[in-house]
Amino acid sequence: MKNAFSKYIDSLQKNLTLTLEDIDGLEKFKKDSWLREAGGGGLTMIIENGNVFEKGGVNVSKVYGKLPDSMSTMLKATNSDFYACGISIVLHPKNPMIPTFHANLRYFELYENEKLRDRWFGGGLDLTPYYIFEKDIIHFHTKCKNSCDKYDSSFYTSYKNKCDEYFWNSHRNEARGVGGLFFDYCRENNEMSIDKWFSFIKDMGQCILDSYIPIVEKRKEETYNSLNLNWQQIRRGRYVEFNLLHDKGTLFGLKTKGRIESIFMSMPPKVKWIYDFKPEKQSDEEKLVKILESPKNWV
Amino acid sequence: MKNAFSKYIDSLQKNLTLTLEDIDGLEKFKKDSWLREAGGGGLTMIIENGNVFEKGGVNVSKVYGKLPDSMSTMLKATNSDFYACGISIVLHPKNPMIPTFHANLRYFELYENEKLRDRWFGGGLDLTPYYIFEKDIIHFHTKCKNSCDKYDSSFYTSYKNKCDEYFWNSHRNEARGVGGLFFDYCRENNEMSIDKWFSFIKDMGQCILDSYIPIVEKRKEETYNSLNLNWQQIRRGRYVEFNLLHDKGTLFGLKTKGRIESIFMSMPPKVKWIYDFKPEKQSDEEKLVKILESPKNWV
Repeated sequence: MKNAFSKYIDSLQKNLTLTLEDIDGLEKFKKDSWLREAGGGGLTMIIENGNVFEKGGVNVSKVYGKLPDSMSTMLKATNSDFYACGISIVLHPKNPMIPTFHANLRYFELYENEKLRDRWFGGGLDLTPYYIFEKDIIHFHTKCKNSCDKYDSSFYTSYKNKCDEYFWNSHRNEARGVGGLFFDYCRENNEMSIDKWFSFIKDMGQCILDSYIPIVEKRKEETYNSLNLNWQQIRRGRYVEFNLLHDKGTLFGLKTKGRIESIFMSMPPKVKWIYDFKPEKQSDEEKLVKILESPKNWV
Repeated sequence: MKNAFSKYIDSLQKNLTLTLEDIDGLEKFKKDSWLREAGGGGLTMIIENGNVFEKGGVNVSKVYGKLPDSMSTMLKATNSDFYACGISIVLHPKNPMIPTFHANLRYFELYENEKLRDRWFGGGLDLTPYYIFEKDIIHFHTKCKNSCDKYDSSFYTSYKNKCDEYFWNSHRNEARGVGGLFFDYCRENNEMSIDKWFSFIKDMGQCILDSYIPIVEKRKEETYNSLNLNWQQIRRGRYVEFNLLHDKGTLFGLKTKGRIESIFMSMPPKVKWIYDFKPEKQSDEEKLVKILESPKNWV
């Protein structure tokens, strides 16, 4: 499974970056391969200052070695090694009418005394808009739901709720965005063999393309002004706050001494913090804030 | 002591904001007083889009109540209340040749079963330059040293080292800036009565003015270009990373449900994250990076 998943994310990375370059029309992804001292490495692909994407990363990493102490405690494991392999995508479009997008698919193997003790998939995808186009959000969630329903009618609701729970900026008491899917510890069981989970994961990979790309295509020619950009940069501040204060992926990366530039490829390019900024009453900006007050059902 | 210190920081806030407004010449501080639901409140004073200060805050807060569980564990206290009172200053100048400045002075009382169990002062001041003017840094540290030497010849070295240790961006393996002073748990003992500590704290308040203001005055007319601004915004990213990943003050504020806008007044106004940005060899930007690789002795 390790090898099969590893090959799959390599091909997904290639496929995604080609598709995104095609949409961007100006910039290409730059490749940066790196090695991790304690074991493994990765290939970071970055696009910057594009026509559509102000900054974006599609990062594959395959790391292994001794499980860090902090994680041993969490997983109740002793004398343990791990193998973690995944693809992460973060896209920060230039146009504030296009949402920021995040997704990742990952596979984890846990060894105790050199024997495989446990293995699972995880991942998800989610949308962080600056302006609300309800149709776009419904489209996004519908694609997510359809991909889930092929496997289990309970998956969508369960993973949608987990996503809302996870991407909650508790210090602001607001959602980071309008959610999507979040799943973790997807282990083989009576209903789902590990191969079936792998097939689910591949459908999620396809869902990344089917859910987000049409929104980019639809909104990339929308007009915007400097006030819209200002709002986008303020909201990106919330994105930074989430990633550095709450995001387990970022903290896992830092704890396992991952490559800092690859971890921080998720950071938005231009960000603002204005003291106590409040959008005007009845404005489009206020509409977003109200929607983020509590998770919504979109389908 | 609670009342004396409380009065002192109110007057320091007034004094500092008037001095800073005078230097800025364009903008005035806006006042925002706030109440904390669980007890206490504060007065946040913010300057934005000034002639000299792009963003700055001078924040007084006086909060009290039941000690949060996480802190009870840390302080090995049960059934405890606290009173915490302090002034925080963060100044982000517009001109990249002027360093960002941070300082705070604080007083903490810990009660167990409603009886005072412990009390101490803490605080410090530190400098985060974007470009290195060695004379300015030496001036800053000399003022810090002189203020310390009045009390104990060991204070400067001890508090300077603590500052270097504290403002270490471990995930980047570099210093946040060029340091200053950091002191905590300053309790009465054979050498220092609580009144003498209070006098030390007041000298630190004076040191804020004497150490930083001359640097602002000296550098505010320095010319700069868009590349200097770009570098300033990239380096401000490191400031954000420190505050959200490592800063105990920020995390204390979030844990005690402090007022979010007052806690985040420390955030820089405009920030950039560029993938794997590296300054040119032999450039002024590279000079800064090299200096931040390990703490230096400036006096």
